[in-house]
Order: sequence, then structure tokens, then C-alpha cells
Amino acid sequence: MLSQTVIKRLKEIVGEKNFVTGKADLFPYTYGFCTLLSGDPLGVVSPQTTEQVVELVKYLNEHNIKVIPRGAGTNVIGGTIPAEESVVISFTRMNKILEIDTENFVTVVQPGVVNFDLQLELEKRGFYYPPDPSSAKVATLGGNLAESSGGARCFKYGVTRDYILGVEVVLPNGKVINTGGRNFKSEPGYDLTRILNGSEGTLGLVTKIILRVLPLPMARRMMLAVYDKVEDAAQTVDGIFAAGIAPATLEMLDNFFINTTEDFCPTGIPRDAGAALIIEIDGYPEDMNEQVRIIGEITRKAKARDFKIARSMGEVEQILTPRKVGFGSIASITPSYSINDIAVPRSNFSQAFAGIKKIAKDLNVKIGVLAHAGDGNFHPFILYDQRNKEEVERVHAAEQALCEMALSFSGTITGEQGVGIAKRKHLDKQFKPEAMEAFRKIKRSFDPQNRFNPGKIFDS
Amino acid sequence: MLSQTVIKRLKEIVGEKNFVTGKADLFPYTYGFCTLLSGDPLGVVSPQTTEQVVELVKYLNEHNIKVIPRGAGTNVIGGTIPAEESVVISFTRMNKILEIDTENFVTVVQPGVVNFDLQLELEKRGFYYPPDPSSAKVATLGGNLAESSGGARCFKYGVTRDYILGVEVVLPNGKVINTGGRNFKSEPGYDLTRILNGSEGTLGLVTKIILRVLPLPMARRMMLAVYDKVEDAAQTVDGIFAAGIAPATLEMLDNFFINTTEDFCPTGIPRDAGAALIIEIDGYPEDMNEQVRIIGEITRKAKARDFKIARSMGEVEQILTPRKVGFGSIASITPSYSINDIAVPRSNFSQAFAGIKKIAKDLNVKIGVLAHAGDGNFHPFILYDQRNKEEVERVHAAEQALCEMALSFSGTITGEQGVGIAKRKHLDKQFKPEAMEAFRKIKRSFDPQNRFNPGKIFDS
Repeated sequence: MLSQTVIKRLKEIVGEKNFVTGKADLFPYTYGFCTLLSGDPLGVVSPQTTEQVVELVKYLNEHNIKVIPRGAGTNVIGGTIPAEESVVISFTRMNKILEIDTENFVTVVQPGVVNFDLQLELEKRGFYYPPDPSSAKVATLGGNLAESSGGARCFKYGVTRDYILGVEVVLPNGKVINTGGRNFKSEPGYDLTRILNGSEGTLGLVTKIILRVLPLPMARRMMLAVYDKVEDAAQTVDGIFAAGIAPATLEMLDNFFINTTEDFCPTGIPRDAGAALIIEIDGYPEDMNEQVRIIGEITRKAKARDFKIARSMGEVEQILTPRKVGFGSIASITPSYSINDIAVPRSNFSQAFAGIKKIAKDLNVKIGVLAHAGDGNFHPFILYDQRNKEEVERVHAAEQALCEMALSFSGTITGEQGVGIAKRKHLDKQFKPEAMEAFRKIKRSFDPQNRFNPGKIFDS
Repeated sequence: MLSQTVIKRLKEIVGEKNFVTGKADLFPYTYGFCTLLSGDPLGVVSPQTTEQVVELVKYLNEHNIKVIPRGAGTNVIGGTIPAEESVVISFTRMNKILEIDTENFVTVVQPGVVNFDLQLELEKRGFYYPPDPSSAKVATLGGNLAESSGGARCFKYGVTRDYILGVEVVLPNGKVINTGGRNFKSEPGYDLTRILNGSEGTLGLVTKIILRVLPLPMARRMMLAVYDKVEDAAQTVDGIFAAGIAPATLEMLDNFFINTTEDFCPTGIPRDAGAALIIEIDGYPEDMNEQVRIIGEITRKAKARDFKIARSMGEVEQILTPRKVGFGSIASITPSYSINDIAVPRSNFSQAFAGIKKIAKDLNVKIGVLAHAGDGNFHPFILYDQRNKEEVERVHAAEQALCEMALSFSGTITGEQGVGIAKRKHLDKQFKPEAMEAFRKIKRSFDPQNRFNPGKIFDS
């Protein structure tokens, strides 16, 4: 509980209505999306300027109160749920696009800008920002930075890490520093920008972000291939890369997702297909036809049942529909689901998919799979009913088994969603004790009192 | 001076002939290439395995002896020159390519592998490693990582940072950790891989590197444009980007380098030209002609005196010659030169070039400029005679003025060569004291005794 003195002061800093402690106001901040994690923050404070953030950090430090930075809260790892008693600092009011510099391919934003809102503004100027997590319509760029978010375009275009040029950040001691800048090349000294990227709000509160943006590609082509078996889809992916083509998108749906999305919003993919592959290429207009031809040949060689090329924007939308409604389609058939996020080197794709199926069978849980196939990044969705405690145990066992299986194939426990609370106990399976100690030392060097998002990533 | 006991033990660890202390043996390690920095290491030890590196670090720790890791020593910042009494650990014997995995676009190398040697092996398999510093034929990949080296292909393809997937590293406490892995997406926890990248050997000794590689482009086209003025070349660069074309190479020579390279190895560029631009595009065969046509139009609009498209491998070589012999061409006309490495956002290119010319005039020094024009990255070469003490003072003043000028245009004191000793005193012009303190805290968290490459980047 916060004292009346503290409440009064916090309201003074941000304005009466921008600090809330009431039960109803706090409700949205008490649960972790797609996890069963929950916790009650002491209050939620919404600053609008860097100066206010500094004042908040200094004042909360004096009272030894911990903080959780939060964007839209779309993370699926409990990253913005209190692991310890904390005040949430919400960045949703710091949502201004400060500058779009099309000459230098740079934009400067506040952390609360929604990814999609930036895309809209950029598009008007013929530009875009490549990282496009599935949550892009809601998620903030500050949150994207905290998790180094990816999306569908990663193989060709990279993740958030590759587009962050610099930040303004409030450190746990209340000092403000600027890292990086507007230059594409390296920054001198240690790479503070990329230490903060993916640090899940545990090292600093980012109050300004300098991003690299790109001109919109001049041409795109969307394709769909349907297969009897996931192995055939994987063979197609390998074939495309071997042909020297880097597609912008290579998204896979398994039989489960083909069926749930057909139920929800039918586009005509056969119900008995083992896998569907959504393939998009982009680039210069002149090379599109030849690449489409090569990809068509590769899919035929990989025994695709069907290969379709979109001939209109309507057909592009139709091909993309199953991927877009994937999340929504399962919400209507299960009370709860757990989203997982493992990645393996691409050559282990088929084996890892078989591993997922085996885990589902062994632990008697229902798992559907969406995958960024070009990155070897799987999102296994485990369906369950949270009221069934015994089932919940099996789901947690499956989550753990997925991480272990990924590691056994030289993979990682998270490709693009982060660690948070949900995967905290798995991190030391990926890293040796000496590396875990290096993480802790970095945390202590930034935040010796463990005040910023405590209990996330690892036990400090 | 090392005691006989220490010398004996070091020789036991690496073998008699792999530890040297004699004056003649140490000579190549006593000077900093293209700087006037010098210093005498206590000895040079050349391990061949990670285990030997661990043994060395532990033993030297016990005797409180500091170490300098070194690849080929081609850095131009005094990065491998002793700033304090130290033993040099040379990685040139750890020069094995351990694995080339063309399926996953990954290679695993020891740090002493020469960049160019890797390229040759990759090329046989249809692949390449994009970062290509000018020193690629000599420089090691470990050294490239220490400086996050760039080269001519950065705008389109990025720097070393963007290709390092993970490392094995011996920490100052003698522990070995593995960071990252073989996955393209982010690593969980803090991004240790990219903290080490560009850390100039001050945080750990990298003993293995996992790199991302790419398939060779299917087609390339080389062009040369010649201008009266640097501003016209800059307008061409802006025009190419505005047209949505991302060239692989955009190298600029100023009038000074046009003349020195014509003297050295004539290719027919007019002596009175203000700038020459070497432009290379790569990609799919089908889009080459159209891009060449667009670039030709842009150069004409920017008042190019001449625009040439290479029609044969011989003509490609001819166009590249001035860039390739740039360094060599000035060695024959000056006893000494200082290579600088500033970068600015591209829109400030012409102003920064004018700034360089003004510094040359104001301080009465001779400066020639090579530039990675697409990155806004200038290499001003200052020519001088090191026997003229008064001139040396003016050269140092010019080096400082170049850094300050770059910063005044939102630039950086180093684009791709690092800080080392040479730029150590300028770092706090780019970063606030609070950021400098963050650097120091990171250093202390890895290396509390300040034993790894002390005195580099900043004063610890």
C-alpha cells in the first residue's frame, strides 16, 4: 500500500487523473496476457514527458518503491505483471512521433507510439518500419524494444535490434543518457543501445527511440502453397533459400490452424492438408516474375498439392487471412491458451516440428502451430481450460518440454517474445552459470537496488 | 620485466616457440599502424586452443599481469599497443574455419581467421560474409569483431554487429561462456554477443565466433561517375536512395585521391575532377538493367561529367582500382599519414566535406578524403612528416577538429574503426558523463581488476 503522502506527490508530478490506485482502474494491469500469471500493482502512473519520468524515478527511489515500465501490455511472458510490489509506469501517453526524416531514413518516436500508427505515417511518405510483431496494431515501439520483437519479415529484414539506432533512457539512478545516434554504423564505446534492446525494462526506462526505416519495396508478390506434410513445406523453405531467394515472409500454418481458421473465416484451404505456406517476396518490379516462377517450381518439386499466386489485392488479403485470424480463431474454441516461442536452426525445422507433436502426444495436450518458417521460429499454441488444475500442470510440463526440445536442436527458448516471468526458470538451461552471472553483473551495474522490473528474465 | 618463473610457465602452456620476449621478436608489436603511438609489450604469447587461453588468463591473473588481445594488428587507433604494462595474446595461431553450414547460412570460426581467407572458402560454396573492411586481406575476424568493422557494403548489408550470432569468450575471471547461438533472432537475457562486439578486447577474449553468411548475389553491376564537385556526387547518392535503390557499394574519392591514385596506377579519371563515385549494385539478374538506367539518369541530373558502366570483369577491376590502391598511393608521397573515421547522417554529407576542407585550410594540413558515401562515413587522411614536431601538433589538432566537426553535424567520432587509445580523449565529447559512467560500470562488472586491454576506449 502506498502512503497518502506518496499518492499525493505522484499525482502532483503527473496530474491528478494520471495516477490511479482504484481496483477497477488497476484491473487491466493485474493479469499477464496468455499466461496464468497475475499480480496487483500498487498503482499505475502515466507520465507525459522525460522530465516527469525522471521525477518519478527519483521520488520512488527515495521511498524504495520498485517500478514496472509498460507499453500496451501485449507481451505473453508476464513481463509487465508485478513479480514484486511495484508501481507500473505506463508509457501510453508518451505517444508522439517526434520526427520522420525521410532523407536519412530515420524516425524519432516516444516509446508509447503504437507500431502500426508509425507504419501508417511512414506509408504516407513511402516508407515502412520492418519489425512487425503480430501485436503491431496494439503494441508500442517501447514494448517492441523491450522484447526485441520480430514478426513475419525477420529473415530478410531482421528484428527490432537491427533498426534501433539510439535511445534516450532514464537510468535507475534517475540520470538521463542518450545512446547511439542517427548514424547507421557502430557506436563508439560499449553498445549501450543493444544492451537496452531486449532488456525487458530491467535496466532503464526508454523515453525516446531513434529508429531506422526503409523505403517501401517497389513490388511485392504473394503466394500460397498447400502440402500434405509439414516436411514438404520445410523442403520448400530450404529450396527457396538454396535458390538464393530471400522472401520477405514465409509463414507456416499446421493442420490444426488450417482447420480453426477455416472454421472462423474460410478461404478454401483443404481441411486435410498437413501444412500451408504463405510466401511473400518483395523487391524491384523486374525480378518478381522470375522469382515467382522459381518458387512455383520448388513447391512442385516439394510435392505441394496446390500453389496459388495472388492476382489482385483481394487475393493477397485472402491468402493472408488465415495468418491474420490465427490468434482469434482459437479464442473461440478454447477458454485458455499458452503461446510459446521457440526457434531452431532452419535445418532442424522438420525434426523440431515432430518434437512438438511428440510432446503433445506424450503429455496429452492439444497444440497448434504457427511458424515463421524462414527463421525456424515456432509458435506452438497449447489449448487448455484453466479451471482444470490437472490439465494446467500438463500444460506447464509441455511448455518446459518445448524449451528443452528446442535447446536439444541448437535452438533457443525464445525467438522474439522474451523471457519475463514465464520463461525465467528455463533461462539457465540455455546459458551456463557463468553466463547467468554475467547477466546478473550487468543488472547490478545498472540497477544495484534491483528497482526496475524486478523478478523478470532471471532471479536477481 | 617478467620473471624467469613466469616466462617458464607461459612457455609450458603454449610451447617454447610460442612465447617471445626478445627485442626483435617484439618489434612488430611496439607501434600502432598509422598512429604515432608506441609501447613495449612484456612479451607475446600465441595460444592455439581455448584451454590454453584459459590457462594463460588464470596464470597471468595470479601474477597480476595485464593482457592485450591481438589479431593482425591492422587497427589504426593504437588498439593493440600497450597503454599499460601488458603481455600481448596473439590469436593468429587460432586460425581455423571450424564449420561452414550452407544450409543454415552459418559459419563457425576461430578468431585468428583472416576475413579474406573466409571469403575464399565461402565463395567456393556460393556464399560470402558481407563485412569487408579495407584491411580484409590481412585483418582477422576476431579483430573485426573487436572493432565492429564495416567496409564498403555497410549501407545495404550492415556491419560486423549484424553478422555475429554468438561467441565463445574467456572472461577476465578465466571462466568461459557461450553467448548467442545459431539462431537469427534475438538471444534471451541481455545481448552479451553485442556487448562484446565493438568492445575492443576490454571485456573478454573471444575464442570462437558464430557468423551469419549470405549466398553470393546472382548479379552485380559496377559503375563509375565523375563530377566537378563533391556536392554533385552527394546529390547523386541522395537521388539513388530517393529512387528506392540500395547499392551494395557507394565509394567516393575526392580530387586529392583521384590524383594520387592516377599517379600510382592510372585509370583515366580526369585530374581536375572534384569527385569520383564508384557505384555497385547487386541482386537478381532481371532488375540490373533498369537500376543501371535509373542511376545513369540520376548522375546526369546531378551534372556528372562522365558515367561509365563496366562491360567486362576487366572494366570492373579498372573502376575499382582507385579505391583499392587508395592507401598505397599515398604511402609513396608522404612519410606518415593519419587515417580518420568520422560519420554523419547522409543529409549532412556535403557540409561535413566542406568542414573537412576548412579544417585542412585553417590548420594548414594536407587532407585527402575517401568516403563510404552511402553511410556518410568519411576517411580523411592527414599527410605529414613525423620528424616535423610542429606539424605533428597541427595534425593532432586537425584530428580533434574532425571529431568535433562530425559531432556538430549529429555525427560520430568513429564509424567503423573504434576508439582505442587514439580517440580515447574524444569519447566524452560524444557522450554525457552519465553515459561514460555506464561504460565504466560495464567494464568493472566484467573486469573489476582492469586486466583486459587496459587504457583503451576510456580511462577506466
